[in-house]
Amino acid sequence: MNYDVIVVGGGHAGIEACLAAAKMGAKTLLITILAEQIGATSCNPAIGGLAKGHLVKEIDALGGAMGETTDNCGIQFRILNESKGPAVRGSRAQIDMDKYRIYMRNLLLNTPNLDISQEIATQILTKNNQIIGVKTHLDNTYNTNHLIITTGTFLNGIIHVGFNKLEAGRVGELSSKELSISLKSLGLDMGRLKTGTCPRIDAKSIDFSVLELQDGDEKPHPFSFKTKNFNPTQLPCYIAYTNLNTHEIIRSNFDRAPLFTGQIEGVGPRYCPSIEDKINRFSERERHHVFVEPQTKDASEYYVNGLSTSLPYDVQVEFIKSIKGFENARIVRHGYAIEYDYVNPTELKHSLETKKVKGLFLAGQINGTTGYEEAGAQGLMAGINAVQSLREKEPLVFRRDEAYIGVLIDDLVTKGTKEPYRMFTSRAEFRLLLREDNATLRLSKYGREIGLLSQEDYEKVLNFKNEIQRGMDFLTNTVVTPSKPTLELLASLDEEPISQNASLQKIVGRKSFTVEKLKKLNELFLSFSEDVLEQILIECKYFFYIQIQKSEVEKMKGLMSVKIPPNLDFSKISGISKEIIEKLNKFNPPTLFAASEISGVTPAAIDILHINIKHFKEQVGENLKD
Amino acid sequence: MNYDVIVVGGGHAGIEACLAAAKMGAKTLLITILAEQIGATSCNPAIGGLAKGHLVKEIDALGGAMGETTDNCGIQFRILNESKGPAVRGSRAQIDMDKYRIYMRNLLLNTPNLDISQEIATQILTKNNQIIGVKTHLDNTYNTNHLIITTGTFLNGIIHVGFNKLEAGRVGELSSKELSISLKSLGLDMGRLKTGTCPRIDAKSIDFSVLELQDGDEKPHPFSFKTKNFNPTQLPCYIAYTNLNTHEIIRSNFDRAPLFTGQIEGVGPRYCPSIEDKINRFSERERHHVFVEPQTKDASEYYVNGLSTSLPYDVQVEFIKSIKGFENARIVRHGYAIEYDYVNPTELKHSLETKKVKGLFLAGQINGTTGYEEAGAQGLMAGINAVQSLREKEPLVFRRDEAYIGVLIDDLVTKGTKEPYRMFTSRAEFRLLLREDNATLRLSKYGREIGLLSQEDYEKVLNFKNEIQRGMDFLTNTVVTPSKPTLELLASLDEEPISQNASLQKIVGRKSFTVEKLKKLNELFLSFSEDVLEQILIECKYFFYIQIQKSEVEKMKGLMSVKIPPNLDFSKISGISKEIIEKLNKFNPPTLFAASEISGVTPAAIDILHINIKHFKEQVGENLKD
Repeated sequence: MNYDVIVVGGGHAGIEACLAAAKMGAKTLLITILAEQIGATSCNPAIGGLAKGHLVKEIDALGGAMGETTDNCGIQFRILNESKGPAVRGSRAQIDMDKYRIYMRNLLLNTPNLDISQEIATQILTKNNQIIGVKTHLDNTYNTNHLIITTGTFLNGIIHVGFNKLEAGRVGELSSKELSISLKSLGLDMGRLKTGTCPRIDAKSIDFSVLELQDGDEKPHPFSFKTKNFNPTQLPCYIAYTNLNTHEIIRSNFDRAPLFTGQIEGVGPRYCPSIEDKINRFSERERHHVFVEPQTKDASEYYVNGLSTSLPYDVQVEFIKSIKGFENARIVRHGYAIEYDYVNPTELKHSLETKKVKGLFLAGQINGTTGYEEAGAQGLMAGINAVQSLREKEPLVFRRDEAYIGVLIDDLVTKGTKEPYRMFTSRAEFRLLLREDNATLRLSKYGREIGLLSQEDYEKVLNFKNEIQRGMDFLTNTVVTPSKPTLELLASLDEEPISQNASLQKIVGRKSFTVEKLKKLNELFLSFSEDVLEQILIECKYFFYIQIQKSEVEKMKGLMSVKIPPNLDFSKISGISKEIIEKLNKFNPPTLFAASEISGVTPAAIDILHINIKHFKEQVGENLKD
Repeated sequence: MNYDVIVVGGGHAGIEACLAAAKMGAKTLLITILAEQIGATSCNPAIGGLAKGHLVKEIDALGGAMGETTDNCGIQFRILNESKGPAVRGSRAQIDMDKYRIYMRNLLLNTPNLDISQEIATQILTKNNQIIGVKTHLDNTYNTNHLIITTGTFLNGIIHVGFNKLEAGRVGELSSKELSISLKSLGLDMGRLKTGTCPRIDAKSIDFSVLELQDGDEKPHPFSFKTKNFNPTQLPCYIAYTNLNTHEIIRSNFDRAPLFTGQIEGVGPRYCPSIEDKINRFSERERHHVFVEPQTKDASEYYVNGLSTSLPYDVQVEFIKSIKGFENARIVRHGYAIEYDYVNPTELKHSLETKKVKGLFLAGQINGTTGYEEAGAQGLMAGINAVQSLREKEPLVFRRDEAYIGVLIDDLVTKGTKEPYRMFTSRAEFRLLLREDNATLRLSKYGREIGLLSQEDYEKVLNFKNEIQRGMDFLTNTVVTPSKPTLELLASLDEEPISQNASLQKIVGRKSFTVEKLKKLNELFLSFSEDVLEQILIECKYFFYIQIQKSEVEKMKGLMSVKIPPNLDFSKISGISKEIIEKLNKFNPPTLFAASEISGVTPAAIDILHINIKHFKEQVGENLKD
């Protein structure tokens, strides 16, 4: 069988990858071990969160599936950091984990050009460092020149609970072992990572009456700009707390914790630590939050977010019972850690294609990330770029100022990672530009261009954009004087008067200004939707900061496209290895960016190269002066 | 942790077992490898069928869950053999396999006294041939004196597809290996069986327009007598046919069929053969039926019932494409065979407790059966009898004339099985008495007695019973003469006249008589429900046959309770092994039935014993005469 694109793995990365490829018109195959578990949320039953919500909105803006599916399967929607600036707000939803899987499986099955086969991929087939196919455990050979691997935790997965080690890709499921050997044989630099998950508790064994209630937003917002008539179920979550007794139970069992005994070799996610890790690292803390989240709309099981652990079962039981409200708690699914193989992401180009093997793309946890959203974002880009490559088009690569997706991938491929990488708003230098609320404005044009967004959907974005533009034009171009009518208007809006001429943009940019006031300012704004008004308000409030970041972007853009002088002699640059010099000589990259995409050319080498280019240019300049 | 009852395995047997035990008030634990897959339909997405529908109705009449769950999750309801007699009719439903699992998991989680733990049971703990607990892979020890094992295909499961062999409990899932060793170490006689499943096809790749349509019943009937306001979704199924080309493709690959190459050692289900087996055994057949069944209400995948196979993947693809309507069919989940360990069911008493280990119960495929319904029935009885044992009460055992469940278990424990056993109406000698329609009349009293049915539900059954009785009393007691009013009435009903006195029962028992006529016969019947009228009609039509079967039952009852004379000298009986004689001497069973429940006492030995008892009694009689 011949396919344009083949995706291995039906998790959050694999889903976006195969949907993107198929929707772009490529004949696509998804190979997955257990069709039942397509779209499974192996860890907490939630999508989004700080910086992760951004990724979901970006996936959605480009035409991916995660946002719409979450809107359809969500059981609690909340915006985190609502009171803080718009750049650091994060949309988050609890989802019905059963419904999410079913929705995704149906979405895939109903997509034209997309086949699914329940098999275990075992061997990557190449010829002259070019992908030519993939083999499965049933000895099936599928021919393709574009293979996307998204193995999540399945590659040589080993589950740890106390002293117990068990080969599994996820609890109860077979792992993938042969594929790891195949990847290694391609010369890819691989390592071992670890992640973990929390116990799930029988709802009937929890005393909710003593827990803090955490409701969803009164006015929930959807993730997808395509979602209409949004009126989701809103179930409550709860908050519990660990206490000194909990900590003591855990601490006194450190000698049985695989994390500390040396049993686990892989590095875990620093920012999503297990409870034993938190007790160890923050020994002064008297309590930790535990978010008690329903797993489905029936809420018969709760995920205890914050209690990720690979402690022995009896310790899990004991420390959970020490928490107020959990005195009689019964664990249905115990927490565990899982170790798995990953590929050093510096093996990748910005397109997520490996530098060493043409046509081999990697996405998701295999690239050293953690999180459904990080996985989905990479899957989407790998799917897009596999098709771009198939069509001999330039890859779609986002700069760091264009998208969190750009930041994510740039971080990975230029810096690599030794621990599971998760997204934070702090990783984005230009986060004022990269807001959730303007994801469509930033990215939907690309989604339309490559064919993932329909013209109809894109029209929505264009309308949105036009209305914001109209509003902003009006506000920046309208200068008011401190005349009587103006002062009266301001007074009626409960706004401070002005003492000199001012653009309306400046007035609307005041902290005290609101959407309601905007509607009263001019009848133009009465016709705009709340989303448009919100955008206008943000653009006004952050007008100058945004201008500053935009000018910084221009500088960075320059850096990325720094030209390498054709007469630069690489062999004279000290501090770069012979091997890298040979490669630079061989490929003769025209820009720094192109140099960075060559296998084996390290970020450090790029830095040295940059300094030398500057130096070289200065010398040339001086020479010219002479 | 101490539990009254522990169930291992969350399939159809395990579900009924743990629900029954918990609902009867026992503190119960379910240990299952993957909570997600509780209630998974590993094979076709359907419940019921010929003789299997009987089992579901019996489970329901006793207070089990299968019937109600099917009513809630069904997507097509049909009565098979509707045109044939009421004894051989079978209710059948296609179910939404996703919804079924979710429904069952929630049902379990919401049941008081019932805990669930996602672990792998590894070791059965005994002391003096009495269960004292079970250990899991996490080294947890759960104490109990009543353990029910329902491992389905997971015990040493090996999946076969062509030459490929893969250790798995079900596709993609971990198998259970250590538990098998533990069972063997208890001295249980174990063997190997094989079952198989069919490919699942991507709906969008099927040309439905050339397939035969198979709709559900216009007036669908629920399985459960408790179901109210029954108005299910009714999706269509389709019928396709294999052809000579299909058969040739399969036949030419017999040399790669694990079934024929010796790769599969376990014996498969004779009455649910794989397609290669059918082609082999019925080489004269020009075609075989293929029932194309939706897997969920979204109908994005279809199960091709009739094409169970472990042929290599490429052969599956080829032979499926040879079928009209499947020319472009894409397999999502390939067919496979699975071999697994089972326990010879002659190791069991009628209570499903093992003869060798007190407190150890087995149910489902581990006892050599096939089918969700057979599994559910055994699970229910094992759950009930574990609690009966816990409370030191007599086990609940149904005679062959009381229930298909009785036939099923009696067949298993007295005859054993060398191949997967499935239920047929032909296995029930008293099938005229054991109808689907009178399951509640036969069994609900027991369900109420042991506490699985609420008084409210039981009242329904009592009302049903009373109305039937009133109707039957009226019909049998009312004798009409060939008077003018009678003849006029008969003529108005389009019924033949009578020439001599006759009871109304006889007239209603005519083939031509209907429920509609019954309503016109006397106003008494106007107040009865359709179900009651249907019952009355059946009772009248089969009046004499039922009487005959009832008298045969009386004979059989006698056989089962044949007393063993206390002065019978076992050692003088020839044809019985020394070992069995020793056991008979040791336990001194008072009846033939009691003798049959002793470990090692074979059905053949029981026959010899019976002949000798008769002979002994004759002799004693003769001696008395002398």
